[in-house]
Amino acid sequence: MATQIAARLHGPADLRVEEVPHPGVPEAGEVLLRVRSTGICGSDLHPYENGAMGDTLLGAPLILGHEFCGVIEEVGDGVKLQIGTRVAVDPAWTCGVCHECSRGNPNLCRQQKFCGLFPNGGSLCQWMRVPARFCHQVPDSISDDEAALLEPLGVALHATDLARIRIGSTVAVLGAGPIGLCVIQLAKLAGAGTVYIEERLRWRRELAQKLGAVWLPAKAEVDVAIECAWAAEAAQAAVDITRPGGVVVLVGIPLGDEITLKHSALRRKGLTLLMCRRMKHVYERTIPLVESGQVDLKCLITHRFPLSDAPEAFRMNAKYEDNVVKTIIFSLTQEGRK
Amino acid sequence: MATQIAARLHGPADLRVEEVPHPGVPEAGEVLLRVRSTGICGSDLHPYENGAMGDTLLGAPLILGHEFCGVIEEVGDGVKLQIGTRVAVDPAWTCGVCHECSRGNPNLCRQQKFCGLFPNGGSLCQWMRVPARFCHQVPDSISDDEAALLEPLGVALHATDLARIRIGSTVAVLGAGPIGLCVIQLAKLAGAGTVYIEERLRWRRELAQKLGAVWLPAKAEVDVAIECAWAAEAAQAAVDITRPGGVVVLVGIPLGDEITLKHSALRRKGLTLLMCRRMKHVYERTIPLVESGQVDLKCLITHRFPLSDAPEAFRMNAKYEDNVVKTIIFSLTQEGRK
Amino acid sequence: MATQIAARLHGPADLRVEEVPHPGVPEAGEVLLRVRSTGICGSDLHPYENGAMGDTLLGAPLILGHEFCGVIEEVGDGVKLQIGTRVAVDPAWTCGVCHECSRGNPNLCRQQKFCGLFPNGGSLCQWMRVPARFCHQVPDSISDDEAALLEPLGVALHATDLARIRIGSTVAVLGAGPIGLCVIQLAKLAGAGTVYIEERLRWRRELAQKLGAVWLPAKAEVDVAIECAWAAEAAQAAVDITRPGGVVVLVGIPLGDEITLKHSALRRKGLTLLMCRRMKHVYERTIPLVESGQVDLKCLITHRFPLSDAPEAFRMNAKYEDNVVKTIIFSLTQEGRK
Amino acid sequence: MATQIAARLHGPADLRVEEVPHPGVPEAGEVLLRVRSTGICGSDLHPYENGAMGDTLLGAPLILGHEFCGVIEEVGDGVKLQIGTRVAVDPAWTCGVCHECSRGNPNLCRQQKFCGLFPNGGSLCQWMRVPARFCHQVPDSISDDEAALLEPLGVALHATDLARIRIGSTVAVLGAGPIGLCVIQLAKLAGAGTVYIEERLRWRRELAQKLGAVWLPAKAEVDVAIECAWAAEAAQAAVDITRPGGVVVLVGIPLGDEITLKHSALRRKGLTLLMCRRMKHVYERTIPLVESGQVDLKCLITHRFPLSDAPEAFRMNAKYEDNVVKTIIFSLTQEGRK
Repeated sequence: MATQIAARLHGPADLRVEEVPHPGVPEAGEVLLRVRSTGICGSDLHPYENGAMGDTLLGAPLILGHEFCGVIEEVGDGVKLQIGTRVAVDPAWTCGVCHECSRGNPNLCRQQKFCGLFPNGGSLCQWMRVPARFCHQVPDSISDDEAALLEPLGVALHATDLARIRIGSTVAVLGAGPIGLCVIQLAKLAGAGTVYIEERLRWRRELAQKLGAVWLPAKAEVDVAIECAWAAEAAQAAVDITRPGGVVVLVGIPLGDEITLKHSALRRKGLTLLMCRRMKHVYERTIPLVESGQVDLKCLITHRFPLSDAPEAFRMNAKYEDNVVKTIIFSLTQEGRK
Repeated sequence: MATQIAARLHGPADLRVEEVPHPGVPEAGEVLLRVRSTGICGSDLHPYENGAMGDTLLGAPLILGHEFCGVIEEVGDGVKLQIGTRVAVDPAWTCGVCHECSRGNPNLCRQQKFCGLFPNGGSLCQWMRVPARFCHQVPDSISDDEAALLEPLGVALHATDLARIRIGSTVAVLGAGPIGLCVIQLAKLAGAGTVYIEERLRWRRELAQKLGAVWLPAKAEVDVAIECAWAAEAAQAAVDITRPGGVVVLVGIPLGDEITLKHSALRRKGLTLLMCRRMKHVYERTIPLVESGQVDLKCLITHRFPLSDAPEAFRMNAKYEDNVVKTIIFSLTQEGRK
Repeated sequence: MATQIAARLHGPADLRVEEVPHPGVPEAGEVLLRVRSTGICGSDLHPYENGAMGDTLLGAPLILGHEFCGVIEEVGDGVKLQIGTRVAVDPAWTCGVCHECSRGNPNLCRQQKFCGLFPNGGSLCQWMRVPARFCHQVPDSISDDEAALLEPLGVALHATDLARIRIGSTVAVLGAGPIGLCVIQLAKLAGAGTVYIEERLRWRRELAQKLGAVWLPAKAEVDVAIECAWAAEAAQAAVDITRPGGVVVLVGIPLGDEITLKHSALRRKGLTLLMCRRMKHVYERTIPLVESGQVDLKCLITHRFPLSDAPEAFRMNAKYEDNVVKTIIFSLTQEGRK
Repeated sequence: MATQIAARLHGPADLRVEEVPHPGVPEAGEVLLRVRSTGICGSDLHPYENGAMGDTLLGAPLILGHEFCGVIEEVGDGVKLQIGTRVAVDPAWTCGVCHECSRGNPNLCRQQKFCGLFPNGGSLCQWMRVPARFCHQVPDSISDDEAALLEPLGVALHATDLARIRIGSTVAVLGAGPIGLCVIQLAKLAGAGTVYIEERLRWRRELAQKLGAVWLPAKAEVDVAIECAWAAEAAQAAVDITRPGGVVVLVGIPLGDEITLKHSALRRKGLTLLMCRRMKHVYERTIPLVESGQVDLKCLITHRFPLSDAPEAFRMNAKYEDNVVKTIIFSLTQEGRK
């Protein structure tokens, strides 16, 4: 039986590079993808650290990885994409026919399979079988690493869409991780007057400032607050700085799952709280943003590791070592790659 | 110096009927109102029980009462309302010119004075001076008691407006106090298919059912949840029963001011949380609803006390005795009243 | 070769009942439907009178009919509906995957095939092959004729959804044909305070009034105007009666295709004009409305003809004879039918 | 009696510079403004050419001019602005208390007085009495001419707000007059991917392209079309190029007042048509846009004339001579001006 190398999570902090079965021949509507780049996401660190994602437990060794791109090596029946096409993959494989999908909200589909979330394996491997309809061709001007990061950029775009930014709006972004750093860029593109940032890690704060954000002053009051932090307290912080009638978007996934809010602060300001759940219909919009240089994804990438070093990459990310922002795992040897 | 009788709160559970100064002659733009009926609101019980409303402390003895109607006895310069006109009063006296007021959101005005909220005296007295622009003439077909209850009905209408109910929507109302009982009626008027109710007090639940609500089943999933309860837990309950993409409106004012929400429940369903802050532009809409019989306010009134018995009325309300729903305090002797 | 009887349009006013091929065995995902009831729609009269529908010409004899229900007689592979199930059919067969479908707007799908619109045959026949996903099971309490009229009711519901009616809104409906008569009922269900009607045919006006509409006075100014008339002038009439900031929904299909509007009337009032294109996601909402009696479809039906008399039915409809509102063509013999 | 010089319209093409009464001492809430710059607007050319603005006839000689700034020379009681403050003036003097004003839509106020629209005189004079609440202080970095053009920029911002532009939207602007040229800049600020322009005058088209717009190709299909042209045909052109589900905003004021639209084009695409009526709440947003250089108003100004040459300025504008885009009339001598 054909095999491949993959990084599988066996339990808390137990990621192993090991031989696993090759995914095999693509079925109708599928492609066989040679994985190139995968980004490590903050949400990968939840199962890495706890062996669980919220109430989704790790039932068996799991290949992580959901921010990725690759090259099509084989195609199943009925697939129009050509062999050799480089594609970014939407990792949320939605059903396309349920109540939510048919109403234009695939991000809320309950039948969706999400790559790298138990029990669905992800992209920290060499080959994957992927439904063709979740593959988005990327132009040559976008590198493999950038193509992998179209996924977090898409989440950031969905969050920005929700935020109802108008020309001249003041926006606060809480948290300058990769999502927050994308939201900063998008909020400015959407016409925000001032974009404030709050972030406790110095190097991320500096990157935010380089992207045009301003350090959040103590007495700020904003039209829109977009929470992109790990910490559960960030939700209350977002509420505190938003003006009456304003909008708070919650994007971050707190470790503890409970958030506590002061009711009077929410109520007296008549706030609107919007929960950002994944993304929808974004690739056709994010690809031109990266292609045209309106969004800079390269500046997020601080580290690159080969697939064989994925355990070390995760260890380092979990400890926020070495001024890490975004880490890319590459599945191919370096030669011949962009 | 002229005096009048009023019910003033001196501290927790210390409401006294006593002589206080008469409000005097109306200034330009004001009317002198002979108070007729005042409803006791759940939010009156906060200061009654704690001597505080959230972080607004009781700095001096305060006349409570913000759901009220009366008859105009004198008018100041420039007032077009006639002496003898019976009016319901919007208790939120907004500035009319600030950022929020000029954008159509007077409910968010930060300069607003609210009757019966420290330091602004309310209507549990005989006469009040009231700006004419907050007085809404009521037709003869609406009784004094109903006119007083236009205030909670207005809050309920604002909540229902926020809720984005469409024809056939399923709606859950949590809490069958006076606001919840109004929301039930309004949700049905707005085309809701089924309106569910959750309420722990048997007699209120029965009234909700009489108004057309259905007891919330264990596995319900609704398009819209409207929380009108005292309890902080109701916010999470509202989140739990709302379908993906649905709307949660928070109307109730919890005693403890902190609400705790499960982030994953909010996030996975991509919910929208809307905070209901008072009301706006509602009297011209609520008056016809009561006049036409589309909304029944009389069914809410379980008790009536003269102003002199206000302390007993509050004591009873605070203990939920005698199957109380809404209590009216009348400031005039019974004779000659509707 | 098996045949069936159908009413086919050969040219202006030339509808012939004749033998045509039987549709054959259902393919995967399809059902074979025994047609029971078909409603004659105003838009059927366009091709009937002109041999064209806008710029869609009649290229060959065409079976008309798009408001219909039937009973499933055979099922293709993968169909979950049972033989014997009575269903209403959504006549717009949309692709389900295009930009518009995937964003929740199948009514805007450009690949859609519409029953009874050239070149797609309709339901004025005995049997049809229909994709199962456009079949909506109807409960026993809904008759065949009512089931057929779920189609125009769906259009009316989509129009009402667009209209942004709030509790207490004043609404004007222009035109009391079947769609207008449904909109009247739905606007009231959505909380409209007063629903006005304008209609030149006396018997339709009277039916509108029986359904709760009020004759539009000369000086009316409404929040929402919903144009459901044939006449191109109705669009300007709708603009004229709508208040500043109001909404105008255009539902009717004028014969001449050009509408002329006074720009200043539109502009000074800052109106919003919404075009109603077919319907979306309505059957799950309209079926309970009819089942519960909230909407009365029976009152619309003034005439019933067997399929063999379809030419006479069309002739009469085109002349508005005999106080016609809605005509049903039944494809089965009367026996055994509801 | 004190007098001043003003440019008054006496009839079609009959603009005269003549002595008129000085406006006198400001009343409570008013300021006396020394007018500095006034822009000539396309809508000034309607009364100039026809002696009428739509159905508003010229009843007596009228001082034109509604795009203007000046310096406060005197203040009435209760005015907080200081003498010497340079202000841009919102020319729509709304009542502040009517149904529309109180709901946040002063642009729809029916009691509004509009400067330079009969019977209210405008700014083509030396001094005006202006209610202080319509005066917006401008920072030193904004010149007099730019300050005058905050008015058309405000209209363009309101139009852009209506247009619901998202990041990556394709937008077509029809007409590259001053409003269209502002809309181009604002649409890009709001995140539009591509902004197309259609304009028959070569020099305006070139300016549009310099501002980043792209010549509209024959087969374009856009998310949003914003019509900023004179011609009534532009409305249909906007409809033709907008994609299904898209938005059309009509801003231009056609001379003939009637627009003719193909109903089927509107209907099949389920379009939303929004009428742009003046502007609301924009000065606090436009001033920072000009101050920061995000919007370039200077590039619009092709001509400057002293007040004494206003007749020649209007004559030239009416004939589109000399590659005119925006003409400024200055009321002060050149010395000492920015």
